[in-house]
Amino acid sequence: MATKAQVLYDFTAEPGNNELSVREGETITITNQSIGGGWIEAQNSRGEIGLVPEDYVEVRITDRPKGTLGHKLWKLGSCSLSLTACNGNDPWAVFDNNASGGFSNNWAAQPEGTETGKNSSNAWGSTSYGHPQAYQGPGAEDDEWDDEWDERKSSGYTEGETGEGGAITRGGAHGSSMKIIGEVGPVWEYPDSQLDCVVADPKKGSKMYGLKSYIEYQVSPNTTNRPVNHRYKHFDWLYERLLEKFGSAIPIPSLPDKQVTGRFEEEFIKMRMERLQAWMTRMCRHPVVANSEVFQLFLNYKDEKDWKTGKRKAEKDETVGVMIFSTIEPEGLPDLELLEVEQKCEQFSRFTKAMDDGVKDLLTVGHEHWKRCTGPLPKEYQRIGKALQNLSSVFTSSGYEGEATLTDAMTAAGKTYEEIAQMVAEQPKKDLHFLMETNNEYKGLLGCFPDTIGVHKAAIEKVKEADKLVATNKITTTEKVTMGKRASTMSYALQAEMNHFHSNRIYDYNRVMQLYLEQQVKFYETIAEKLRHAHSQFTTM
Amino acid sequence: MATKAQVLYDFTAEPGNNELSVREGETITITNQSIGGGWIEAQNSRGEIGLVPEDYVEVRITDRPKGTLGHKLWKLGSCSLSLTACNGNDPWAVFDNNASGGFSNNWAAQPEGTETGKNSSNAWGSTSYGHPQAYQGPGAEDDEWDDEWDERKSSGYTEGETGEGGAITRGGAHGSSMKIIGEVGPVWEYPDSQLDCVVADPKKGSKMYGLKSYIEYQVSPNTTNRPVNHRYKHFDWLYERLLEKFGSAIPIPSLPDKQVTGRFEEEFIKMRMERLQAWMTRMCRHPVVANSEVFQLFLNYKDEKDWKTGKRKAEKDETVGVMIFSTIEPEGLPDLELLEVEQKCEQFSRFTKAMDDGVKDLLTVGHEHWKRCTGPLPKEYQRIGKALQNLSSVFTSSGYEGEATLTDAMTAAGKTYEEIAQMVAEQPKKDLHFLMETNNEYKGLLGCFPDTIGVHKAAIEKVKEADKLVATNKITTTEKVTMGKRASTMSYALQAEMNHFHSNRIYDYNRVMQLYLEQQVKFYETIAEKLRHAHSQFTTM
Repeated sequence: MATKAQVLYDFTAEPGNNELSVREGETITITNQSIGGGWIEAQNSRGEIGLVPEDYVEVRITDRPKGTLGHKLWKLGSCSLSLTACNGNDPWAVFDNNASGGFSNNWAAQPEGTETGKNSSNAWGSTSYGHPQAYQGPGAEDDEWDDEWDERKSSGYTEGETGEGGAITRGGAHGSSMKIIGEVGPVWEYPDSQLDCVVADPKKGSKMYGLKSYIEYQVSPNTTNRPVNHRYKHFDWLYERLLEKFGSAIPIPSLPDKQVTGRFEEEFIKMRMERLQAWMTRMCRHPVVANSEVFQLFLNYKDEKDWKTGKRKAEKDETVGVMIFSTIEPEGLPDLELLEVEQKCEQFSRFTKAMDDGVKDLLTVGHEHWKRCTGPLPKEYQRIGKALQNLSSVFTSSGYEGEATLTDAMTAAGKTYEEIAQMVAEQPKKDLHFLMETNNEYKGLLGCFPDTIGVHKAAIEKVKEADKLVATNKITTTEKVTMGKRASTMSYALQAEMNHFHSNRIYDYNRVMQLYLEQQVKFYETIAEKLRHAHSQFTTM
Repeated sequence: MATKAQVLYDFTAEPGNNELSVREGETITITNQSIGGGWIEAQNSRGEIGLVPEDYVEVRITDRPKGTLGHKLWKLGSCSLSLTACNGNDPWAVFDNNASGGFSNNWAAQPEGTETGKNSSNAWGSTSYGHPQAYQGPGAEDDEWDDEWDERKSSGYTEGETGEGGAITRGGAHGSSMKIIGEVGPVWEYPDSQLDCVVADPKKGSKMYGLKSYIEYQVSPNTTNRPVNHRYKHFDWLYERLLEKFGSAIPIPSLPDKQVTGRFEEEFIKMRMERLQAWMTRMCRHPVVANSEVFQLFLNYKDEKDWKTGKRKAEKDETVGVMIFSTIEPEGLPDLELLEVEQKCEQFSRFTKAMDDGVKDLLTVGHEHWKRCTGPLPKEYQRIGKALQNLSSVFTSSGYEGEATLTDAMTAAGKTYEEIAQMVAEQPKKDLHFLMETNNEYKGLLGCFPDTIGVHKAAIEKVKEADKLVATNKITTTEKVTMGKRASTMSYALQAEMNHFHSNRIYDYNRVMQLYLEQQVKFYETIAEKLRHAHSQFTTM
């Protein structure tokens, strides 16, 4: 049966690239869904066949897999990360209804004794978090995986091979647990020197005998200054691993979206690189993420073999989902009462919700302002400039003596307003852009909190049920105590994460507001200076 | 028969003032058209009766008086002088079709010898110019005339009384002719000191036993510094006289319109006063107008009796319409060839048309800009300000230590944008206003040129026909020469007027552009300063 798909966005084929131009709303027939690299082959109603970005089309499938939290169910047609608010996909809605749904059979509900058991991976590790890919076996649909990824299917690699890799990974990053230190409230253990990296030097490469081309970025960590190459899909792979592993405890923001017109346009590449940089910087800044084996692999792999081995190992990591909490040590901190756990959780939930609203509001306002600054406002200044110049040239035609001083000055004033028009149109890229990017990042981060908080709420509910479970002999009193301890650990993790979030937030907003205002000051000063010069050309009377 | 009228503009009654609120499009019945002072009494469909400004309604009369140039045929519903362009009443259309229609039987076509004859007023004076009131005898409809005007009807004052008054007036202002001096091209004879006046101190008065109230302005000329009181309708009377007397040679711009909502609102009074001031200043600046007896009367009348006597005399002035050219002396200038007369006329026609277009374009652009500056733009800055303050107050709720510096700075930045919003909204009144007012004035002035130029074109046509008239013995060769001389004089007058116009234009636009840019510089500097202060409140890292 031919799979039909609906085109969601206009896409213009790049000449000589085997691509197919499609228009929003058009229905196309998918002729090959296994092209990979984010592309599908499709045929339009005129019989033309070519490649189309899979993000640009929505395949008409009605039966979706159950039991997931509803995010990124289908790569095809996922919601845009553009400047507009992403309606109909409000993560807070998930929070209200489904958040605790996936939390049955988890770490917090398990008795202490079995925690270190190597063969309990079903009970411990199966509640992977948030991303459906984690639930799908190697046989599941995986359009995202091409070339070296395909090896996974064909190399004879099986579940049985994972033994020692899983064991090493289980202990957490580099074999040590994540520590929470409690002197000024719970905080993650921060390294002495801050990891950082530079994403730069995008280069176009090609594969499939030149059929498809892609962009490769150089990623250079400040620890080695040795660049490694990564394509967008490698970043995406890293994102999946981090989400799977840390998503229950740490908000892992989505990568910049793929749905931007003109995959190889310079502007798009620049924008994507800038956003990948921002994403990597944020990940580097997080002590837990930055210190993780998978993240270190991404930054420091020595060669292709090292990368592939590391990749397989990371994919077999069993310390994922709520299991991550088993690696957390609230060092020297007393167990928390359930009430306090609950209060903290509520407090963070309220704050992140309120900030999410605030950020979205600012984004909406900023988007409106951007549109005005690049659309009607400069047009108006241009028209003022033209009208003044036009009147000046009428004056010149008067034939009256002594006209020149006025007409020269009026023409100069008119040109000044045309210059101002251009300045106004270009200004958002110099200031509003960064304010918007930062707020977009925070929108992404905040969108992760409902799930993170949902995990905690579910754990709290479990602990609340514990008495009943003891009474009906479902669990022992010891197991009940363990559950309480674990909820306490989870709460410390959440508090550490919130403190991490707050400190970063203060840093980021302070920085971006300074940048914004600095550029705004320059902007208005330059306009004033230009107008002062225009003014000086009129004769004083 | 009840006279029906259609309401052209919304009007909201002022409480306790016997006024009637009406809505645009409503049909009302006029119950008393003789109220005066610009008011009529009308009844709405609900039976309510009250006063309505006559300019707000259009009486349904289909048979209009013939033989006029089509301007201001009816005071009721005349076209608004608001910022929008006045469609459907384009004076240039008149230029193309009708301008020469009223020019039969005029001064330029009369032989020299009869020019000074006192008893030839029918032949000389009857072609009054542009305003229908001039054609209407004392018995014609004159809603504009109330109280002291009514005396004219009832005082037994008749045509016969005008003898000596008319004789004195005929010679022109203060008995001397208007001179054109030709050293640097034809220019009017300018006085040594420039007449000027201040329109100030508007005071509310009332009449008809308090039934109607009005505003009286103090007009103080710089020659005496002695204020005289005038109501709007006195200005209107002066305008009518000046138009009638000088309209063929000198563009007499209309008064500020009456169609503004809320006759006694402070803003309206301020605006009208400002525009009356601008109108008076322009009239004072014109050496011919300023020196005229009627204008001097308006500025210098000693008491009510003096005013009334002067008024009657002015109304009997027979040196009106094209007769004005008989008072012009092109001193020491040679007669112009018809070709040159024609070329000059064409040149001025092109220039004034082009400038009219340019001015209207600037007005349209300015009006758009005004709307944006007072509407969406400040709203947007306000929303930016609110969004920043809102985010700041969310941050305050975090419970995180060391938040205050950021939140204080963000709140301050938000407030700064609110201040900027207000500045943006108030700015047009500080700069764009004067640019618009000046251009509106020029729009009015330029709207007079088609008629003025039409008079000239008609004279040129007459001279062109002269040969044929001589051949058919309709006129003598002497009369033909006289006609040529007169066309030459008219052309000198037009050139002097154009030179007057140009020199004023250069002055006015230089001044208003300086003012505009000066205020714009201040505006942008203040914004930059405010933002610099907001910026300084963020911590440097």
